[in-house]
Amino acid sequence: MVEMKTIAESKCFEGTQWVLSHQSKYCACDMTFGIYVPEKAGSSKLPLIWYLSGLTCTHENAMVKSGIQRWASEKEVAVVFPDTSPRGEGVPDDPNFDLGQGAGFYIDSKKFPWEKNFQMWSYILKELPELIFSNFHLDEKKQSIMGHSMGGLGALNMAFRNPKVFKAVSAFAPISNPTSGIWGRKQFESYLGIESELWEEYDPSILLEKRGYPGSILIDQGTKDDFLDKLMPESLEKQVNARKQGNSFRYQEGYDHSYFFVSTFMKDHVFWHEKILNK
Amino acid sequence: MVEMKTIAESKCFEGTQWVLSHQSKYCACDMTFGIYVPEKAGSSKLPLIWYLSGLTCTHENAMVKSGIQRWASEKEVAVVFPDTSPRGEGVPDDPNFDLGQGAGFYIDSKKFPWEKNFQMWSYILKELPELIFSNFHLDEKKQSIMGHSMGGLGALNMAFRNPKVFKAVSAFAPISNPTSGIWGRKQFESYLGIESELWEEYDPSILLEKRGYPGSILIDQGTKDDFLDKLMPESLEKQVNARKQGNSFRYQEGYDHSYFFVSTFMKDHVFWHEKILNK
Repeated sequence: MVEMKTIAESKCFEGTQWVLSHQSKYCACDMTFGIYVPEKAGSSKLPLIWYLSGLTCTHENAMVKSGIQRWASEKEVAVVFPDTSPRGEGVPDDPNFDLGQGAGFYIDSKKFPWEKNFQMWSYILKELPELIFSNFHLDEKKQSIMGHSMGGLGALNMAFRNPKVFKAVSAFAPISNPTSGIWGRKQFESYLGIESELWEEYDPSILLEKRGYPGSILIDQGTKDDFLDKLMPESLEKQVNARKQGNSFRYQEGYDHSYFFVSTFMKDHVFWHEKILNK
Repeated sequence: MVEMKTIAESKCFEGTQWVLSHQSKYCACDMTFGIYVPEKAGSSKLPLIWYLSGLTCTHENAMVKSGIQRWASEKEVAVVFPDTSPRGEGVPDDPNFDLGQGAGFYIDSKKFPWEKNFQMWSYILKELPELIFSNFHLDEKKQSIMGHSMGGLGALNMAFRNPKVFKAVSAFAPISNPTSGIWGRKQFESYLGIESELWEEYDPSILLEKRGYPGSILIDQGTKDDFLDKLMPESLEKQVNARKQGNSFRYQEGYDHSYFFVSTFMKDHVFWHEKILNK
């Protein structure tokens, strides 16, 4: 069994907010993540929501800024907060904030110098679940995923390609059409190489159009988001609305890209996830 | 009228989270603060809660970590988040985290090199209110104050010495008896000079014993707080309990000193303040 190191353990809304680290085989470095486990009355396994963060974030941002623990505690669901990339001295980086450390884009890289460490897709889908489900009393059959910005992109891609694992996906201001946008083309070229079929495997607008998704989708996008030209919500909005699921792509009047926006709608998201997970 | 510069403006729980800066005459430098103003149905002036932060914090910590906006929005109260000290290149500092910038202790310094800038007592009680009440539609007659750690100390001192201004005071893990503790004696000696009557003006345990307080008090202290030896809650607990106000000094089992603790009890505090402010 893989050994984990406890970095921090804080009581929070009667449950426990853990920060843990472990040696990752996929990322070939030490990885840190947060996990919130509410106190629970019964003995049944708890559902698990994955929260993927955006550019420049670590495991910590959503953990301290989103207010998610209050709602997770109330609804008795656990939440895991993975890091956004491999990190450390031996890990390649880039001087720009939108490439390298803090900008893993939740993909498995194929290109030098990134491919040795930047395997966030496999890290989150294969390595971290093994670690989490063997150490916490959680229900593998009740998983869903959410994320913000680059993490919204990762959450949508993971759900659309793994509908049996994730019953529901929600996102705050996700990067929505990366094969067409500044946030996407640059990173895909660096991590995956020149434009190819691989790119489409990481574009939620294309995935949803081509494969559909049997689960539930909820997306919130602020209308005063400074990054609308990079997020490109329109194509995803079109695909989501074409599903006729009802009010699942919502523009929120006056909200920006910050955690002031995320925290405002977090209760909605957690309650929505829990309802689906416990259906 | 003093000019203010808008650093940031984000919609949050239907209201607005501002970050503003201005030239301070008391601190002789540019000062930044946050203020949250909820959206409001009627036209009456809103009550105002002051939130004072702890060591190493800026105006930002509680603003992004405490989750206070949700409750302030629900109860229609504004919240102001001052910085914890003067800052900048021309402002004296100390290599230790508990003295100098980020560690103003909310006192008016009398000693070189601090006295030119470190006038946080007057800044918060005289300069900032003038600025806030002339720019926002808030009710000067409905003010209360709260804080965390060093900010809890500041909040208690300000309330006890200004009971007509602050109808209520609450604190999370406040520095409670600074004239006897490591967090207090060191800073008082630097900022105020060798032990004197001045020190007692900044010690809430002594102030409450000597002067009493006609307002309401609520204090939460985690039992797993790593800084209990420096906070010294016992003397304050004794004074608060001697008032026989009921359950106003509460030990919270298992909680530490972090914002995971603060955010857990924030709803309680805001609801408690609002009830008193609108009585």
